Parts: sequence; structure tokens; C-alpha cells
Amino acid sequence: MAKTMEEIVAHCKNTGFIFPGSEIYGGLANSWDYGPLGVELKNNIKKLWWEKFVQKRENSFGIDCAILMNPRVWEASGHVASFSDPLVDCKECKARFRADNLISDFSKGEVNPDLMTREEMSKYLSDNHVPCPVCKKSNFTPIREFNLLFQTHRGVTKESQQDIYLRPETAQGEYVNFLNVQRTMRAKVPFGIGQIGKAFRNEITPGNFTFRQIEFEQMEYQWFCHEGEDEKYYEEFKKASKDFFLSLGIGEDKLRFHDHDKLAFYAKAACDLQFLFPFGWDEVNGIHNRTNYDLSRHQEFSGKAMQYLDPITNEKFIPFVIENSYGLDRAILAVICNSYETEKLEDGEEREIMRIIPKLAPFKVAVLPLMKKDLSEKAKELFSKLSQSFRTIYDDTGSIGKRYRRQDQIGTPLCVTVDYETLENQTVTVRDRDTMAQIRLPISELEGYISKIVNG
Amino acid sequence: MAKTMEEIVAHCKNTGFIFPGSEIYGGLANSWDYGPLGVELKNNIKKLWWEKFVQKRENSFGIDCAILMNPRVWEASGHVASFSDPLVDCKECKARFRADNLISDFSKGEVNPDLMTREEMSKYLSDNHVPCPVCKKSNFTPIREFNLLFQTHRGVTKESQQDIYLRPETAQGEYVNFLNVQRTMRAKVPFGIGQIGKAFRNEITPGNFTFRQIEFEQMEYQWFCHEGEDEKYYEEFKKASKDFFLSLGIGEDKLRFHDHDKLAFYAKAACDLQFLFPFGWDEVNGIHNRTNYDLSRHQEFSGKAMQYLDPITNEKFIPFVIENSYGLDRAILAVICNSYETEKLEDGEEREIMRIIPKLAPFKVAVLPLMKKDLSEKAKELFSKLSQSFRTIYDDTGSIGKRYRRQDQIGTPLCVTVDYETLENQTVTVRDRDTMAQIRLPISELEGYISKIVNG
Repeated sequence: MAKTMEEIVAHCKNTGFIFPGSEIYGGLANSWDYGPLGVELKNNIKKLWWEKFVQKRENSFGIDCAILMNPRVWEASGHVASFSDPLVDCKECKARFRADNLISDFSKGEVNPDLMTREEMSKYLSDNHVPCPVCKKSNFTPIREFNLLFQTHRGVTKESQQDIYLRPETAQGEYVNFLNVQRTMRAKVPFGIGQIGKAFRNEITPGNFTFRQIEFEQMEYQWFCHEGEDEKYYEEFKKASKDFFLSLGIGEDKLRFHDHDKLAFYAKAACDLQFLFPFGWDEVNGIHNRTNYDLSRHQEFSGKAMQYLDPITNEKFIPFVIENSYGLDRAILAVICNSYETEKLEDGEEREIMRIIPKLAPFKVAVLPLMKKDLSEKAKELFSKLSQSFRTIYDDTGSIGKRYRRQDQIGTPLCVTVDYETLENQTVTVRDRDTMAQIRLPISELEGYISKIVNG
Repeated sequence: MAKTMEEIVAHCKNTGFIFPGSEIYGGLANSWDYGPLGVELKNNIKKLWWEKFVQKRENSFGIDCAILMNPRVWEASGHVASFSDPLVDCKECKARFRADNLISDFSKGEVNPDLMTREEMSKYLSDNHVPCPVCKKSNFTPIREFNLLFQTHRGVTKESQQDIYLRPETAQGEYVNFLNVQRTMRAKVPFGIGQIGKAFRNEITPGNFTFRQIEFEQMEYQWFCHEGEDEKYYEEFKKASKDFFLSLGIGEDKLRFHDHDKLAFYAKAACDLQFLFPFGWDEVNGIHNRTNYDLSRHQEFSGKAMQYLDPITNEKFIPFVIENSYGLDRAILAVICNSYETEKLEDGEEREIMRIIPKLAPFKVAVLPLMKKDLSEKAKELFSKLSQSFRTIYDDTGSIGKRYRRQDQIGTPLCVTVDYETLENQTVTVRDRDTMAQIRLPISELEGYISKIVNG
């Protein structure tokens, strides 16, 4: 039985996956903190991505750029001029909305605001008497553009201050370092640059939990190639995106591609990979054929040649870029939504379970002393041993049945129970999350057994 | 032969460890980007730290909090009121300095400005006619306090905007989530919370490369314990800090502790672990006995009880905190400074080498076809195989001797050369970075051999 978003948010908070940001101070809208389970899941997904895109690919290199960049970067990228949402206020109740969201909600997705000009949006709102979702009246202000860049100030006094921005995407770091990476790695086109890092957008609309936050993490891969090969690689990265989400244990039936209805003027092709969240299909990944637009703009704005000299053909050119961008927080949310369910057992009872694949599970194994008295010492010794190799959790509170259920709830693939027999013959009970089957194993064989299940 | 800072900066840029941030736009002061080698080194250090402090310790949990927090957090922590540097301007040449730095430089470290009030600093500057380092005159403005917090604005219109800050340290995330972690993990005091993440400070003074940046990454561990056990744990974490840096391959002679000359009014003890950089001894880690100050302040400012109820004694109390804080960028810089040198060989020749321990080396192994013609296919096949398990680099440009030297320069522990014999009998030459010794190995034994060297 699948869960609603409300149930998922509550589960994440109650079990330690995700807490509201700054919770004791009443929070900060659209900001979230990853708890002890969430951070492990996050790190496991990052590791898988890095291995797939940076480590195991030929001609592939990672970088990690500063969040604060020279402001000219965002002039070249176009973010200073036009990275904005169309906002309207309800004149009656003062609530604030994105005009495009009002239109697509009102039309139940029949009308696509991405294809409309600002004027057309205004006209649609008034022609159709679109009601305010809060007070139900229809009396909106004209559309105003609201830039999503967070701005801050570098330097000391008012006069010497420089306006700088929190990056709204990581991609520009790969572009401005294109030549640095090419030169130091003696890379030959085609080659790729990958980066994982935070980005910031001053979002004002509700976020659907961690789906849309003011601060989020991206995993971006930029593939620099020769014009003419771009279409081939675009298709290759569509496949790579889907393969990546399949490797997170997500079923094929919950993934689909969605071509953009409107392309940026420089783009040749763009699509999203969407996941079926409880709130509907939405983007978890984007694949864009950006042509040579980004490097050309940086050449224009920086005055530095962004050309590549092919050592074989002697041709000089600005490479095309295929961008493959992943929302890390969305990938995490997709894994959580995909794996959390209530299962009906044979005896009619129900249990909560997260069927998260072992490679991604926050804790790989739980060590549980059957009784606290007498068995804690042995159990802690085993915890120390296993935690050298696996993220392990120790729990000695409550009945053993309750403790099994707790581990099911957070997706721990294996529970190891230390009982009185353990003291006699150095064997333990190993219980499987999915089948609930229990086997008896010598402690000496435990690491090999866990490793096989966790590392596949 | 050790290197100067200038040589280290140049080496990092030339080989792909660290580039100036936004370089094509003339940079952004005190900001740096990690290149393909730097990001791997960084990830390797993060992994070691996480394993040591979060994974392998009992009662230890990780979190990953938002950079943007509710602004009340920074009122409670004291950063809004008093996180500032004492600045003076030279009235003659308009250059700007930190008064404390002027005093400690002028007195060659004999006078400790940390022990002085602002008035005493002003008096010292004028009494001693401390000269401006730029124009050599001595005519400074009075000291002004400059708050180091980066401020930005959340929300849309001027009226509805909320001033928020980029966190200047990660620690408050652990404090405000103390109860969330305790509750969800059923943790018993003493327990610890670890976090790795970015922090931001509006630094105006030169940074000594990546030592002092406007944006930096911290690895922080907070240990919550009962009063009375705090002194024992303070000593334990001093040892843990030093052990961690020793595990990065840093020699004991380059590490020392330095007790703080002046304690914050709430602190019971505080010291730094210092590393001997080319520019002198400086802090890479801090250990603080913060008493129950932080949690008490958050209790006061949030109105939420931050107490722990001991299930055995039924005692209710606000735990003491031992903080153990690591500058990740400083750890990286220490490893680079520690390992980069020019070595005199027996034949009188010199070679550049980074004696970085294999576990931390950005690339574990280089695959080199002796000749591009005929051998590329086999070498690429081997690259594909090895890169499934190890971060591997492929290089086919230049003579084999030059390629060995290049790998020495970036610290790659092993080079594997594919030659004509490889095609015949599936063996390769494996060359060791430190000894330069070469052995012949069957490809089938390669992974085991590399794994032994890399994973110890």
C-alpha cells in the first residue's frame, strides 16, 4: 500500500530521515535538514552517481567549485537579466502566487503556461476569472517579474561592496573551468566534467516537501563534444539517466521522459526524466543539448577564447555541451517514495517497511542483544567489529519484535540478534528485512554474508 | 626539498588540484575551485573522517543541515551581535587592515592582540607608531567592528523580506537538532553528532591560498556528555584529532597543540591543533569544551526545553558539549604541503613528487600504453576494467618517462604500462611511485595487487 505525501513527511521526521530546517525556531520555509538516516542515504546516492559518471567513464573528470562566483558569470549565463518567476498578488486577501502555477492548476494541466507570454498569462487569468486558491475571489495584480537569485555582498563598507550571488545552478562552474580541466588532464574532446554541490533559489511557492527547496543539491554532468556528435550523445545520456534511476531500485513503470514544450532559443533539444511522486509526475533529471551557447557566452563576456584545438584535425572550435542534471534531493525523495509502504502479512497483521535496496540503505545491519542484561557486552563487541566495515546501528530498547519492526521501517536489510546461545557457540541469528526469514550463522561468517548482500 | 607557498599554489593550478575561483573573469578574492585532482583528494579525506567519527564510533550519528537557517539561530549563538573583526583604514593610502593582525605582525608575535580590548589595540597602534604595511606611514582611523556574516534576503518584495545569513559555522545545525537526533536514534548521553558542510565568512584579509577563504568546508563533531565527564572527553578528542591527522600521513613533528590564550566566557577549555605550513604554524583543528552554553542559549531563545532525561537515574539536565572542529580545506592544504617535494635522485637528477598516502591519492593507478599505435585498444580495455574498482587515469601523451614523472607529480601510487609483450602474454609493467621499482605482473593479479597497496 503506497503512502501519501503527508505520511511520507511524517515518517521522515519520526524516523530521522529528514527534519524541518531550524525546527525549534519554527523552521524556515522550504528548508530541510537531513537527519542521521537521510545523510547516509544521500551519501550513498552521491557515491553511486560519482562512480557511474566520474570514475567509471572514460575521459571523465570531477570538480568542486565555489558557490560564490564572480558576478559576471551570472551576467554571461543570463541569470541576472532573466531568471525570474511571474508573480501575482491577490488584491483581496494579499496571498501571492506564481501566475504560471495558477493557470496550470486551474486548467488541470490542459493549458501549458510555458508556451505563453506574460501578457497571455494575464489575459488568461482575467478572461477565465481564475479564482484565488485562498479566498476564491478573482482579482489579481498585474504580473511582476521576481528574480530568484539570492544576492549578498562581498567586502566591508557600503562603498566598496560588491553584489554577488549564491549560485542558482552548479553548471556554470563546469563551463568556466572547461579549459582548466582540459589543460590539466590533457583531455581530448569528447570529455566530461561532473560536479556535486549546493545551489540556491529564492522560491516562494510551496515546495512539496524536499522537491522544491530554497537550497538544494545538484549532481551535474556536462559532456563536451564536437557538433555533429551531439545528437548521438543526447540519446546516450537519456539512457544513462534512466539507467541511473533504475540502479536506485526504482521501477521502470514510475519513470518516463517528457520533452520540453518550449526550447530556450539556443537549445537544440531538452527533456526531463520524470518520476511518479504521490503528487504526480515530476522532474528528477534534465537532459539538454545546449549547443555551444554557454562556452560562447563565456568567451564573449570574459574575453578568453573558449576554443578547443583538435590535435589530430587541427580544427579549432567551441564544443557543444550535452548537460545531464540530477536533483539530488529529488533522487532521495524518489527513493523514499518508491520504497516506503505498508505491507499486509499472511497473518493479517500489517507492517511498515522501506524496501530500499541494500546498497542505498542508511544502515546495513542492526545489532540487537536479545536481553540487555548479560548480552550487551557481547553485542557491543560485535557492533564494534561490524561497524569497521558497514554502517551499523545498535538497539537494545524494547522487545525483539518491536526492534525488528523499527529496522523494517527505516529499511535496514539485516538484523543480527545476540542471544544466550551466542555466548556458548559464537553464532547469531540473522533476520532478513524482506522475507523476515531467520538463519543461524557463526560470527566468523557474518562479514562475508553481509558484504554479499550489501555490495551485490 | 620542501616547497614555498608560491610553488605550491602554482603546482596546484598547473596539475589540476586547485584553480582560482571564476578564473576567466579575473577571479573572486579568496575563493578557489577544486579541480579533478583536488575533488578526489577532498572526497577521500571526507570519507576517512566520516568513517572514523560517524561510522566506527559507538553512539555516533551524522546529519546534513541547510546552510540557510532561521535568523534567530544566529542571535542565540551570538554571531549577529559580536562575530566581527576590528578594522582600521590607513588615512594616507586608504588601505584596510585588521588591527589585530597589524599588532601581531609588528610585534613579531611578541604581543597577543587576542588578550587586548579594542581600546588597548588603538592605543598600541598609536603609541608604537605602527606603520601601514603599504605606505609605511602611521595614521589609522579608529577601529570599527566589521561583522563577518554574509547576509541575504528571503522573500519577494522589500516589505515582506526577511534578512537571513549564510551560516558562518556548521555547529549550530548539530545543536538545534540535538533533540531530533536523540529522539529518532533513541540515543543515550553520551552520544555524538557529526556533520560535513560549507560555511561562509566575509573575510577581507589575504587568505594564504585556501587556508582562509570566504567559503570553506568544515567537518564538525559535537559530543554531548554529562558534566563531570567533560574533561575526560576533552582529552579523548585531543587525541582523536591528532590521530586523524597522523592517519592522513602527516608527520608527528609537523603537528602541535596550542592552548587558547583567552577563553570565551562560557568555555572551560579550548585548544587548536596546528600544522607547520610553509607560512608557519597555524590551526587545522579546534577542540573546545563549550559547557552547556550552546544548548542553554537555544533553550532560552527558542523556548524549547533542550534537556535530556537520563532513563536510568531519572536526572534531567542540559548536556555539556565537547566540540571537535576540522577545517576540511586546511586538512587538504596540509596534506598537499606535507607531501609535495623535489627529490634528488641517485644519478643527480631531480624529480617532483607528491608522497601522498595511497588511500588519499586522487588517482590510484595510471594506465599508460607504451605506444599509442597498436596498444591503445588493449590499454583502454584495461582502463575500463580497473576503473570499475579504482579511480584510474589514462595517459597516452609523451614519452613513457615523462608520463611516469607526471604521475609522480600528482601522487599516483602506481603506473601500469601496456607494451607489446602484454598482447602476447597478458602481463604488464607495474611501477611504484616512491621506489620507482618496476615489476611484471599478469593482468589477472593486478586488481588484488593494487587493492593491497591502496586499501592497506
